[in-house]
Amino acid sequence: MRMQDRSGYTIWFTGLSGAGKTTLAMGLGAALIESGRRVEILDGDEVRQNLSAGLGFSKADRDANVRRIGFVARLLSRNGVVAIAAAISPYRAIREELRQTHDAPFIEIFVDCPLDELMRRDTKGLYAKAIRGEIEHFTGVSDPYEPPTAPDLIIHTARESTTQSIARLLKLLEDRQMTGYSPLASGR
Amino acid sequence: MRMQDRSGYTIWFTGLSGAGKTTLAMGLGAALIESGRRVEILDGDEVRQNLSAGLGFSKADRDANVRRIGFVARLLSRNGVVAIAAAISPYRAIREELRQTHDAPFIEIFVDCPLDELMRRDTKGLYAKAIRGEIEHFTGVSDPYEPPTAPDLIIHTARESTTQSIARLLKLLEDRQMTGYSPLASGR
Repeated sequence: MRMQDRSGYTIWFTGLSGAGKTTLAMGLGAALIESGRRVEILDGDEVRQNLSAGLGFSKADRDANVRRIGFVARLLSRNGVVAIAAAISPYRAIREELRQTHDAPFIEIFVDCPLDELMRRDTKGLYAKAIRGEIEHFTGVSDPYEPPTAPDLIIHTARESTTQSIARLLKLLEDRQMTGYSPLASGR
Repeated sequence: MRMQDRSGYTIWFTGLSGAGKTTLAMGLGAALIESGRRVEILDGDEVRQNLSAGLGFSKADRDANVRRIGFVARLLSRNGVVAIAAAISPYRAIREELRQTHDAPFIEIFVDCPLDELMRRDTKGLYAKAIRGEIEHFTGVSDPYEPPTAPDLIIHTARESTTQSIARLLKLLEDRQMTGYSPLASGR
């Protein structure tokens, strides 16, 4: 019987638009809630409305938006919550800054998907617009994306199913004794 | 022996600059941490740096800033944390909106102090500047403050000591079984 672990941490999903960050965040969140954890999902687009109305997509505005999501994740995670962020967060230095300023563990997950696959999927039609020049500052097309150099895990959404990815994420957390699953927790 | 209560809630201190919101937030926070609660203090000035850089003191900007503090308090409180906000938050309608959108209890505390007493104290010299017209949009002098019509508690910082005020706040929370004090909690 494992000890019940109630410490918070942040799972930070970074990657291009459409790579699968939100899907993974929701799936992982559901599994962790099932195991008795308190979970809060901070979705980039949604949080932007609440914290960053008026900010655009220049580097300065993107940095500010990512820092704000990071600030909220920091407060939640240091209070026992699993904060799961899904945000493009294209710049390595800002993600590193968030890791440094976190009080609780900051786990960086690179949601990797080849650009040609993203353009093929293009569920929202954004890549097509970006390529036609109708969207400025579109990460991966007309704006840079700096992949993590040492992420805690890389998820290849073009090569593995969501179920497989979630299983790998849970394995990572279990290895670090971070799922918090225990007979006590499951009983509440 | 009371049951251990681990539900979160928000304590929202509203009132003029210098009325004593931050002092009360810190004192109450310390007492609740002592009783085993997870506490996060959201101080208006401090949160402004993290969430609202670039916003000023127009009504729209103030509203946005207060809504952002409220959003963070909402996320914390619904995850078992006691979120304590200390923010002038001058407009009644926005505070009411925060109460409505909260998932956890939202407890509004009016930190009341007569303007002449605040001008007499004026520890930061802000009232003097505001009266001389050197600060625009200064709440209580050149900008409106709408006191709560039905706060959960009124603290008269000109007539009672901080110790007395904290005791009254704790009494309010104890009456609502919200302190979470228990032999179990104090042992951690």
